[in-house]
Amino acid sequence: MNDSPSKSRGVFYGVGVGPGDPELMTMKAVRLVQQCDLVTYLSSDNGYSMARNIAATVLADSNNPGQQEQAIVMPMCESREVANSVYDEAARIIASHLDKGERVVFLCQGDPFLFGSFAYLYDRLADNYEVEIVPGISSINASAALCGKPLGLLAENIAIISGRRGSDDILQTLRQFDNVAIMKPGRRRAELLALIEAANRVDDCCYIEYAGHENQRIVQDIRTLDAQPGPYFSLFLVNRARNYGSTK
Amino acid sequence: MNDSPSKSRGVFYGVGVGPGDPELMTMKAVRLVQQCDLVTYLSSDNGYSMARNIAATVLADSNNPGQQEQAIVMPMCESREVANSVYDEAARIIASHLDKGERVVFLCQGDPFLFGSFAYLYDRLADNYEVEIVPGISSINASAALCGKPLGLLAENIAIISGRRGSDDILQTLRQFDNVAIMKPGRRRAELLALIEAANRVDDCCYIEYAGHENQRIVQDIRTLDAQPGPYFSLFLVNRARNYGSTK
Repeated sequence: MNDSPSKSRGVFYGVGVGPGDPELMTMKAVRLVQQCDLVTYLSSDNGYSMARNIAATVLADSNNPGQQEQAIVMPMCESREVANSVYDEAARIIASHLDKGERVVFLCQGDPFLFGSFAYLYDRLADNYEVEIVPGISSINASAALCGKPLGLLAENIAIISGRRGSDDILQTLRQFDNVAIMKPGRRRAELLALIEAANRVDDCCYIEYAGHENQRIVQDIRTLDAQPGPYFSLFLVNRARNYGSTK
Repeated sequence: MNDSPSKSRGVFYGVGVGPGDPELMTMKAVRLVQQCDLVTYLSSDNGYSMARNIAATVLADSNNPGQQEQAIVMPMCESREVANSVYDEAARIIASHLDKGERVVFLCQGDPFLFGSFAYLYDRLADNYEVEIVPGISSINASAALCGKPLGLLAENIAIISGRRGSDDILQTLRQFDNVAIMKPGRRRAELLALIEAANRVDDCCYIEYAGHENQRIVQDIRTLDAQPGPYFSLFLVNRARNYGSTK
Protein backbone atom coordinates (compact mmCIF):
# COMPACT_ATOMS: atom_id res chain seq x y z
CA MET A 1 0.00 0.00 0.00
CA ASN A 2 2.89 2.35 0.78
CA ASP A 3 5.69 3.61 -1.40
CA SER A 4 8.87 1.60 -1.68
CA PRO A 5 10.80 3.50 1.06
CA SER A 6 8.22 2.25 3.55
CA LYS A 7 9.13 -1.37 2.91
CA SER A 8 11.85 -1.24 5.51
CA ARG A 9 9.56 0.44 8.02
CA GLY A 10 8.23 -1.32 11.08
CA VAL A 11 4.62 -2.06 11.94
CA PHE A 12 2.56 -0.39 14.65
CA TYR A 13 0.18 -2.72 16.53
CA GLY A 14 -2.73 -1.52 18.66
CA VAL A 15 -3.18 -4.53 20.92
CA GLY A 16 -6.21 -5.04 23.17
CA VAL A 17 -5.17 -6.71 26.44
CA GLY A 18 -8.74 -7.23 27.67
CA PRO A 19 -10.56 -5.82 30.69
CA GLY A 20 -8.36 -7.02 33.55
CA ASP A 21 -7.87 -10.79 33.82
CA PRO A 22 -4.52 -11.46 32.07
CA GLU A 23 -5.91 -14.83 30.85
CA LEU A 24 -8.42 -12.90 28.72
CA MET A 25 -5.60 -11.72 26.45
CA THR A 26 -5.83 -13.36 23.03
CA MET A 27 -3.07 -15.62 21.76
CA LYS A 28 -2.34 -13.01 19.10
CA ALA A 29 -1.94 -10.29 21.73
CA VAL A 30 0.47 -12.50 23.69
CA ARG A 31 2.56 -13.28 20.62
CA LEU A 32 2.86 -9.65 19.50
CA VAL A 33 3.60 -8.31 22.98
CA GLN A 34 6.39 -10.85 23.38
CA GLN A 35 7.88 -10.47 19.90
CA CYS A 36 7.80 -6.71 19.40
CA ASP A 37 10.82 -4.42 19.74
CA LEU A 38 9.07 -1.65 21.67
CA VAL A 39 6.14 -1.82 24.09
CA THR A 40 4.27 1.44 24.73
CA TYR A 41 1.32 2.26 26.99
CA LEU A 42 -0.36 5.17 28.73
CA SER A 43 0.62 5.71 32.33
CA SER A 44 -0.46 8.12 35.04
CA ASP A 45 1.78 10.79 36.58
CA ASN A 46 2.84 8.35 39.26
CA GLY A 47 3.94 5.73 36.72
CA TYR A 48 1.01 3.33 37.04
CA SER A 49 -0.37 1.76 33.85
CA MET A 50 -3.41 -0.50 34.05
CA ALA A 51 -2.74 -1.92 30.57
CA ARG A 52 0.94 -2.62 31.44
CA ASN A 53 -0.25 -4.28 34.64
CA ILE A 54 -2.58 -6.65 32.76
CA ALA A 55 0.29 -7.64 30.42
CA ALA A 56 2.90 -7.87 33.20
CA THR A 57 3.17 -11.67 33.32
CA VAL A 58 3.27 -11.97 29.55
CA LEU A 59 6.04 -9.34 29.41
CA ALA A 60 7.99 -11.05 32.18
CA ASP A 61 7.85 -14.27 30.13
CA SER A 62 8.95 -12.49 26.93
CA ASN A 63 12.44 -13.88 26.71
CA ASN A 64 13.18 -10.98 24.37
CA PRO A 65 16.24 -9.24 25.83
CA GLY A 66 16.34 -6.46 23.21
CA GLN A 67 12.79 -5.39 23.96
CA GLN A 68 12.32 -1.81 25.13
CA GLU A 69 9.46 -0.08 26.92
CA GLN A 70 8.18 3.48 26.65
CA ALA A 71 5.53 4.80 29.02
CA ILE A 72 3.41 7.65 27.66
CA VAL A 73 2.59 9.79 30.67
CA MET A 74 -0.93 11.24 30.47
CA PRO A 75 -1.61 13.89 33.13
CA MET A 76 -4.87 13.44 35.06
CA CYS A 77 -6.83 16.38 33.67
CA GLU A 78 -9.69 16.80 31.25
CA SER A 79 -7.99 19.20 28.86
CA ARG A 80 -8.13 17.83 25.30
CA GLU A 81 -5.29 20.24 24.43
CA VAL A 82 -3.00 18.59 26.95
CA ALA A 83 -4.08 15.11 25.78
CA ASN A 84 -3.52 16.03 22.13
CA SER A 85 -0.03 17.32 22.77
CA VAL A 86 0.82 14.10 24.66
CA TYR A 87 -0.47 12.05 21.69
CA ASP A 88 1.49 14.25 19.25
CA GLU A 89 4.72 13.65 21.15
CA ALA A 90 3.99 9.91 21.58
CA ALA A 91 3.32 9.60 17.84
CA ARG A 92 6.68 11.25 17.11
CA ILE A 93 8.50 8.79 19.38
CA ILE A 94 6.67 5.77 17.93
CA ALA A 95 7.33 7.00 14.36
CA SER A 96 11.06 7.28 15.09
CA HIS A 97 11.10 3.59 16.09
CA LEU A 98 8.99 2.56 13.07
CA ASP A 99 11.42 4.44 10.82
CA LYS A 100 14.18 2.19 12.14
CA GLY A 101 12.14 -0.87 11.06
CA GLU A 102 11.06 -1.80 14.59
CA ARG A 103 7.77 -3.45 15.51
CA VAL A 104 5.94 -1.35 18.08
CA VAL A 105 3.01 -2.47 20.28
CA PHE A 106 0.68 -0.05 22.06
CA LEU A 107 -1.10 -1.85 24.93
CA CYS A 108 -4.81 -0.96 25.15
CA GLN A 109 -7.03 -1.97 28.04
CA GLY A 110 -10.13 -3.73 26.70
CA ASP A 111 -10.57 -3.26 22.96
CA PRO A 112 -8.44 -0.67 21.09
CA PHE A 113 -11.38 0.76 19.12
CA LEU A 114 -14.07 0.79 21.83
CA PHE A 115 -13.50 4.02 23.74
CA GLY A 116 -9.77 3.30 23.54
CA SER A 117 -7.09 5.97 23.52
CA PHE A 118 -5.38 4.03 20.75
CA ALA A 119 -7.65 5.75 18.20
CA TYR A 120 -5.75 9.02 18.73
CA LEU A 121 -2.42 7.41 17.90
CA TYR A 122 -4.00 5.55 14.99
CA ASP A 123 -5.22 8.87 13.61
CA ARG A 124 -1.70 10.31 13.76
CA LEU A 125 0.17 7.32 12.28
CA ALA A 126 -2.09 5.27 9.98
CA ASP A 127 -1.64 7.49 6.92
CA ASN A 128 2.12 6.98 6.86
CA TYR A 129 2.76 3.63 8.52
CA GLU A 130 1.38 0.10 8.46
CA VAL A 131 -0.90 -0.20 11.48
CA GLU A 132 -2.65 -3.38 12.64
CA ILE A 133 -5.38 -3.45 15.28
CA VAL A 134 -5.74 -6.55 17.43
CA PRO A 135 -9.18 -6.58 19.05
CA GLY A 136 -9.54 -7.35 22.75
CA ILE A 137 -12.32 -8.39 25.13
CA SER A 138 -14.18 -5.27 26.18
CA SER A 139 -15.40 -4.63 29.72
CA ILE A 140 -18.95 -4.85 28.35
CA ASN A 141 -18.62 -8.46 27.22
CA ALA A 142 -16.68 -9.34 30.37
CA SER A 143 -19.36 -7.76 32.58
CA ALA A 144 -22.19 -9.56 30.78
CA ALA A 145 -20.33 -12.83 31.40
CA LEU A 146 -19.68 -12.05 35.07
CA CYS A 147 -23.30 -11.04 35.73
CA GLY A 148 -24.85 -13.88 33.73
CA LYS A 149 -26.77 -11.40 31.57
CA PRO A 150 -26.94 -12.06 27.80
CA LEU A 151 -26.56 -8.83 25.83
CA GLY A 152 -28.44 -9.84 22.72
CA LEU A 153 -30.74 -12.61 21.54
CA LEU A 154 -32.58 -13.05 18.23
CA ALA A 155 -33.74 -9.62 16.98
CA GLU A 156 -32.95 -7.64 20.15
CA ASN A 157 -30.99 -4.42 20.04
CA ILE A 158 -28.14 -3.13 22.18
CA ALA A 159 -26.95 0.39 22.97
CA ILE A 160 -23.60 1.41 24.41
CA ILE A 161 -23.87 4.93 25.71
CA SER A 162 -21.56 7.22 27.62
CA GLY A 163 -22.75 8.27 31.07
CA ARG A 164 -21.64 11.74 30.01
CA ARG A 165 -24.48 12.15 27.50
CA GLY A 166 -27.42 14.41 28.31
CA SER A 167 -30.16 13.05 30.58
CA ASP A 168 -32.84 13.07 27.87
CA ASP A 169 -30.58 11.09 25.59
CA ILE A 170 -29.85 8.46 28.26
CA LEU A 171 -33.53 8.19 29.22
CA GLN A 172 -34.62 7.76 25.60
CA THR A 173 -31.97 5.06 25.06
CA LEU A 174 -33.07 3.18 28.21
CA ARG A 175 -36.67 3.20 26.94
CA GLN A 176 -35.85 2.36 23.34
CA PHE A 177 -33.28 -0.46 23.66
CA ASP A 178 -33.68 -3.99 25.00
CA ASN A 179 -30.15 -3.94 26.38
CA VAL A 180 -28.03 -0.94 27.39
CA ALA A 181 -24.50 -0.59 28.70
CA ILE A 182 -23.91 2.81 30.33
CA MET A 183 -20.17 3.42 30.31
CA LYS A 184 -18.20 5.84 32.47
CA PRO A 185 -20.93 6.48 35.07
CA GLY A 186 -18.28 7.80 37.48
CA ARG A 187 -19.34 11.03 39.14
CA ARG A 188 -22.86 10.94 37.66
CA ARG A 189 -23.87 7.72 39.41
CA ALA A 190 -26.70 9.29 41.46
CA GLU A 191 -28.23 10.93 38.40
CA LEU A 192 -27.94 7.72 36.38
CA LEU A 193 -29.66 5.70 39.13
CA ALA A 194 -32.55 8.17 38.96
CA LEU A 195 -32.75 7.85 35.15
CA ILE A 196 -32.74 4.03 35.35
CA GLU A 197 -35.60 4.24 37.83
CA ALA A 198 -37.48 6.78 35.67
CA ALA A 199 -37.19 4.35 32.72
CA ASN A 200 -38.58 1.60 34.97
CA ARG A 201 -35.50 -0.59 34.48
CA VAL A 202 -34.19 -1.04 38.01
CA ASP A 203 -35.01 -4.77 37.96
CA ASP A 204 -33.12 -5.17 34.67
CA CYS A 205 -29.95 -3.49 35.90
CA CYS A 206 -26.70 -4.52 37.52
CA TYR A 207 -23.51 -2.55 38.22
CA ILE A 208 -19.89 -3.62 37.78
CA GLU A 209 -16.62 -1.99 38.82
CA TYR A 210 -13.14 -3.07 37.64
CA ALA A 211 -14.35 -6.22 35.82
CA GLY A 212 -11.69 -8.90 36.03
CA HIS A 213 -9.37 -6.95 38.34
CA GLU A 214 -8.48 -7.82 41.92
CA ASN A 215 -10.81 -5.11 43.22
CA GLN A 216 -13.72 -6.23 41.01
CA ARG A 217 -17.17 -5.46 42.45
CA ILE A 218 -20.53 -6.70 41.16
CA VAL A 219 -23.83 -5.29 42.44
CA GLN A 220 -26.71 -7.40 41.10
CA ASP A 221 -29.42 -5.36 42.86
CA ILE A 222 -28.76 -1.68 42.26
CA ARG A 223 -31.23 -0.75 45.02
CA THR A 224 -28.33 -1.58 47.35
CA LEU A 225 -25.90 0.75 45.53
CA ASP A 226 -24.96 4.03 47.19
CA ALA A 227 -25.78 7.12 45.16
CA GLN A 228 -22.16 8.27 45.41
CA PRO A 229 -19.56 9.05 42.78
CA GLY A 230 -17.79 5.86 41.65
CA PRO A 231 -14.60 5.06 39.75
CA TYR A 232 -14.08 5.65 36.02
CA PHE A 233 -13.79 1.92 35.32
CA SER A 234 -17.38 0.95 36.07
CA LEU A 235 -20.58 0.46 34.12
CA PHE A 236 -24.29 -0.17 34.40
CA LEU A 237 -25.62 -3.13 32.43
CA VAL A 238 -29.34 -3.00 31.68
CA ASN A 239 -30.72 -6.23 30.37
CA ARG A 240 -34.12 -7.09 29.01
CA ALA A 241 -36.07 -9.66 31.02
CA ARG A 242 -37.00 -12.34 28.51
CA ASN A 243 -38.52 -15.69 27.85
CA TYR A 244 -35.87 -17.83 26.19
CA GLY A 245 -38.37 -20.42 25.03
CA SER A 246 -37.21 -23.06 27.48
CA THR A 247 -39.71 -25.85 28.00
CA LYS A 248 -38.21 -26.78 31.36
CA MET B 1 -23.98 -21.43 46.13
CA ASN B 2 -25.48 -24.87 45.54
CA ASP B 3 -26.52 -27.58 47.99
CA SER B 4 -23.92 -30.07 49.15
CA PRO B 5 -24.81 -32.79 46.58
CA SER B 6 -23.69 -30.40 43.86
CA LYS B 7 -20.15 -30.28 45.20
CA SER B 8 -19.17 -33.32 43.17
CA ARG B 9 -20.83 -31.91 40.06
CA GLY B 10 -18.86 -30.67 37.10
CA VAL B 11 -18.77 -27.17 35.69
CA PHE B 12 -20.31 -26.00 32.43
CA TYR B 13 -18.25 -23.44 30.48
CA GLY B 14 -19.64 -21.26 27.69
CA VAL B 15 -16.44 -20.41 25.84
CA GLY B 16 -16.18 -17.72 23.16
CA VAL B 17 -13.75 -18.75 20.43
CA GLY B 18 -13.81 -15.39 18.64
CA PRO B 19 -14.98 -14.43 15.17
CA GLY B 20 -12.83 -16.67 12.97
CA ASP B 21 -9.06 -16.26 13.35
CA PRO B 22 -7.99 -19.05 15.76
CA GLU B 23 -5.31 -16.73 17.19
CA LEU B 24 -8.09 -14.46 18.50
CA MET B 25 -9.04 -17.13 21.07
CA THR B 26 -8.16 -16.01 24.58
CA MET B 27 -5.62 -17.92 26.67
CA LYS B 28 -8.46 -18.88 29.02
CA ALA B 29 -10.50 -20.30 26.13
CA VAL B 30 -7.49 -22.35 24.99
CA ARG B 31 -6.87 -23.71 28.49
CA LEU B 32 -10.48 -24.72 29.11
CA VAL B 33 -10.96 -26.26 25.66
CA GLN B 34 -7.83 -28.37 26.15
CA GLN B 35 -8.52 -29.39 29.77
CA CYS B 36 -12.24 -30.17 29.70
CA ASP B 37 -13.71 -33.65 29.60
CA LEU B 38 -16.39 -32.96 26.99
CA VAL B 39 -16.40 -30.45 24.10
CA THR B 40 -19.83 -29.56 22.67
CA TYR B 41 -20.84 -27.26 19.80
CA LEU B 42 -23.66 -26.63 17.37
CA SER B 43 -23.30 -28.24 13.97
CA SER B 44 -25.35 -28.17 10.78
CA ASP B 45 -27.14 -31.20 9.33
CA ASN B 46 -24.06 -32.01 7.26
CA GLY B 47 -21.80 -32.07 10.32
CA TYR B 48 -20.06 -28.69 9.82
CA SER B 49 -19.46 -26.53 12.89
CA MET B 50 -17.92 -23.09 12.45
CA ALA B 51 -17.05 -22.87 16.17
CA ARG B 52 -15.42 -26.35 16.11
CA ASN B 53 -13.50 -25.28 13.02
CA ILE B 54 -12.07 -22.19 14.77
CA ALA B 55 -10.93 -24.34 17.71
CA ALA B 56 -9.64 -27.21 15.54
CA THR B 57 -5.90 -26.56 16.02
CA VAL B 58 -6.29 -26.01 19.75
CA LEU B 59 -8.25 -29.29 20.02
CA ALA B 60 -5.67 -31.15 17.93
CA ASP B 61 -2.98 -29.95 20.38
CA SER B 62 -5.04 -30.96 23.44
CA ASN B 63 -2.99 -33.94 24.51
CA ASN B 64 -6.06 -35.00 26.50
CA PRO B 65 -6.79 -38.57 25.41
CA GLY B 66 -9.90 -38.98 27.57
CA GLN B 67 -11.57 -35.94 26.01
CA GLN B 68 -14.89 -36.54 24.25
CA GLU B 69 -16.85 -34.47 21.73
CA GLN B 70 -20.56 -34.08 21.24
CA ALA B 71 -21.98 -32.22 18.24
CA ILE B 72 -25.43 -30.69 18.76
CA VAL B 73 -27.11 -30.88 15.36
CA MET B 74 -29.28 -27.82 14.69
CA PRO B 75 -31.49 -28.22 11.59
CA MET B 76 -31.41 -25.28 9.18
CA CYS B 77 -34.92 -23.93 9.72
CA GLU B 78 -36.38 -20.93 11.49
CA SER B 79 -38.75 -22.78 13.79
CA ARG B 80 -38.14 -21.82 17.43
CA GLU B 81 -39.98 -24.99 18.45
CA VAL B 82 -37.44 -27.15 16.66
CA ALA B 83 -34.56 -25.10 18.09
CA ASN B 84 -35.98 -25.32 21.60
CA SER B 85 -36.34 -29.08 21.46
CA VAL B 86 -32.72 -29.36 20.24
CA TYR B 87 -31.58 -27.19 23.18
CA ASP B 88 -33.72 -29.25 25.60
CA GLU B 89 -32.08 -32.48 24.46
CA ALA B 90 -28.58 -30.93 24.45
CA ALA B 91 -29.11 -29.64 28.00
CA ARG B 92 -30.10 -33.16 29.11
CA ILE B 93 -26.94 -34.65 27.60
CA ILE B 94 -24.71 -31.94 29.10
CA ALA B 95 -26.40 -32.34 32.51
CA SER B 96 -25.73 -36.08 32.46
CA HIS B 97 -22.00 -35.37 32.04
CA LEU B 98 -22.03 -32.64 34.73
CA ASP B 99 -23.72 -35.10 37.09
CA LYS B 100 -20.71 -37.38 36.66
CA GLY B 101 -18.43 -34.51 37.76
CA GLU B 102 -17.12 -33.77 34.27
CA ARG B 103 -16.09 -30.35 33.00
CA VAL B 104 -18.02 -29.50 29.84
CA VAL B 105 -17.17 -26.75 27.33
CA PHE B 106 -19.66 -25.37 24.81
CA LEU B 107 -17.81 -23.64 21.95
CA CYS B 108 -19.42 -20.34 20.90
CA GLN B 109 -18.41 -18.38 17.84
CA GLY B 110 -17.63 -14.77 18.82
CA ASP B 111 -18.87 -13.92 22.31
CA PRO B 112 -21.24 -16.32 24.14
CA PHE B 113 -23.61 -13.57 25.28
CA LEU B 114 -23.71 -11.39 22.16
CA PHE B 115 -26.34 -13.02 19.93
CA GLY B 116 -24.88 -16.38 20.94
CA SER B 117 -26.85 -19.61 21.06
CA PHE B 118 -25.14 -20.37 24.36
CA ALA B 119 -27.76 -18.25 26.16
CA TYR B 120 -30.38 -20.94 25.53
CA LEU B 121 -28.27 -23.61 27.20
CA TYR B 122 -27.37 -21.22 30.01
CA ASP B 123 -31.06 -20.66 30.62
CA ARG B 124 -31.66 -24.41 30.94
CA LEU B 125 -28.65 -25.25 33.15
CA ALA B 126 -27.60 -22.24 35.26
CA ASP B 127 -30.21 -22.77 38.00
CA ASN B 128 -28.89 -26.23 38.84
CA TYR B 129 -25.26 -26.25 37.81
CA GLU B 130 -22.19 -24.08 38.14
CA VAL B 131 -21.84 -22.26 34.81
CA GLU B 132 -18.97 -19.98 33.82
CA ILE B 133 -18.99 -17.73 30.77
CA VAL B 134 -15.70 -16.95 29.05
CA PRO B 135 -16.11 -13.86 26.84
CA GLY B 136 -14.77 -13.88 23.29
CA ILE B 137 -13.92 -11.31 20.62
CA SER B 138 -17.13 -10.44 18.79
CA SER B 139 -17.35 -9.95 15.04
CA ILE B 140 -18.16 -6.28 15.74
CA ASN B 141 -14.83 -5.55 17.43
CA ALA B 142 -12.99 -7.67 14.85
CA SER B 143 -14.67 -5.80 11.98
CA ALA B 144 -13.90 -2.38 13.47
CA ALA B 145 -10.24 -3.47 13.70
CA LEU B 146 -10.16 -4.80 10.13
CA CYS B 147 -11.79 -1.69 8.66
CA GLY B 148 -9.77 0.78 10.76
CA LYS B 149 -12.97 2.34 12.13
CA PRO B 150 -13.08 3.23 15.85
CA LEU B 151 -16.46 2.34 17.37
CA GLY B 152 -16.48 4.84 20.18
CA LEU B 153 -14.55 7.91 21.30
CA LEU B 154 -15.13 10.27 24.24
CA ALA B 155 -18.90 10.73 24.72
CA GLU B 156 -20.04 9.03 21.49
CA ASN B 157 -22.73 6.36 21.49
CA ILE B 158 -22.93 3.01 19.75
CA ALA B 159 -25.90 0.89 18.69
CA ILE B 160 -25.88 -2.77 17.76
CA ILE B 161 -29.08 -3.56 15.94
CA SER B 162 -30.41 -6.62 14.19
CA GLY B 163 -31.05 -6.27 10.45
CA ARG B 164 -34.33 -8.02 11.19
CA ARG B 165 -35.81 -5.02 13.03
CA GLY B 166 -38.45 -2.87 11.38
CA SER B 167 -37.30 -0.26 8.86
CA ASP B 168 -38.43 2.71 10.98
CA ASP B 169 -36.46 1.34 13.92
CA ILE B 170 -33.28 0.92 11.84
CA LEU B 171 -33.65 4.37 10.26
CA GLN B 172 -34.14 6.04 13.64
CA THR B 173 -31.08 4.25 15.04
CA LEU B 174 -28.94 5.31 12.06
CA ARG B 175 -29.98 8.93 12.60
CA GLN B 176 -29.66 8.87 16.40
CA PHE B 177 -26.34 7.09 16.98
CA ASP B 178 -22.79 8.11 16.12
CA ASN B 179 -21.82 4.52 15.42
CA VAL B 180 -24.04 1.61 14.41
CA ALA B 181 -23.38 -2.07 13.73
CA ILE B 182 -26.20 -3.69 11.76
CA MET B 183 -25.98 -7.42 12.39
CA LYS B 184 -27.47 -10.23 10.31
CA PRO B 185 -28.20 -8.16 7.17
CA GLY B 186 -28.43 -11.38 5.12
CA ARG B 187 -31.45 -11.38 2.86
CA ARG B 188 -32.40 -7.76 3.63
CA ARG B 189 -29.21 -6.26 2.22
CA ALA B 190 -30.94 -4.24 -0.53
CA GLU B 191 -33.42 -2.73 1.92
CA LEU B 192 -30.65 -1.92 4.42
CA LEU B 193 -28.58 -0.18 1.72
CA ALA B 194 -31.61 2.01 0.98
CA LEU B 195 -32.04 2.83 4.68
CA ILE B 196 -28.35 3.72 5.07
CA GLU B 197 -28.71 6.06 2.08
CA ALA B 198 -31.94 7.55 3.47
CA ALA B 199 -30.12 8.29 6.73
CA ASN B 200 -27.36 9.98 4.70
CA ARG B 201 -24.69 7.63 6.07
CA VAL B 202 -23.30 5.98 2.94
CA ASP B 203 -19.92 7.67 3.40
CA ASP B 204 -19.74 6.45 7.01
CA CYS B 205 -20.43 2.81 6.17
CA CYS B 206 -18.44 -0.29 5.34
CA TYR B 207 -19.50 -3.91 4.96
CA ILE B 208 -17.77 -7.06 6.22
CA GLU B 209 -18.44 -10.75 5.58
CA TYR B 210 -16.88 -13.63 7.52
CA ALA B 211 -14.46 -11.45 9.54
CA GLY B 212 -11.27 -13.40 10.24
CA HIS B 213 -12.22 -16.42 8.12
CA GLU B 214 -10.52 -17.57 4.93
CA ASN B 215 -13.39 -16.19 2.85
CA GLN B 216 -13.36 -12.80 4.61
CA ARG B 217 -14.57 -9.90 2.45
CA ILE B 218 -14.32 -6.19 3.27
CA VAL B 219 -16.15 -3.56 1.21
CA GLN B 220 -14.99 -0.09 2.27
CA ASP B 221 -17.22 1.75 -0.23
CA ILE B 222 -20.72 0.30 -0.08
CA ARG B 223 -21.64 2.04 -3.35
CA THR B 224 -19.79 -0.88 -4.95
CA LEU B 225 -21.82 -3.52 -3.06
CA ASP B 226 -24.46 -5.47 -5.01
CA ALA B 227 -27.98 -5.13 -3.63
CA GLN B 228 -28.24 -8.91 -3.35
CA PRO B 229 -28.91 -11.19 -0.42
CA GLY B 230 -25.70 -11.96 1.47
CA PRO B 231 -24.60 -14.55 4.03
CA TYR B 232 -25.73 -14.64 7.66
CA PHE B 233 -22.22 -13.90 8.94
CA SER B 234 -21.93 -10.34 7.68
CA LEU B 235 -22.51 -6.87 9.05
CA PHE B 236 -22.66 -3.19 8.17
CA LEU B 237 -20.47 -0.91 10.27
CA VAL B 238 -21.55 2.74 10.30
CA ASN B 239 -18.99 5.03 11.79
CA ARG B 240 -19.14 8.70 12.59
CA ALA B 241 -16.74 10.91 10.66
CA ARG B 242 -14.85 12.83 13.34
CA ASN B 243 -12.11 15.22 14.20
CA TYR B 244 -9.81 13.44 16.63
CA GLY B 245 -8.09 16.62 17.67
CA SER B 246 -4.87 15.78 15.93
CA THR B 247 -2.62 18.77 15.34
CA LYS B 248 -0.75 17.04 12.53
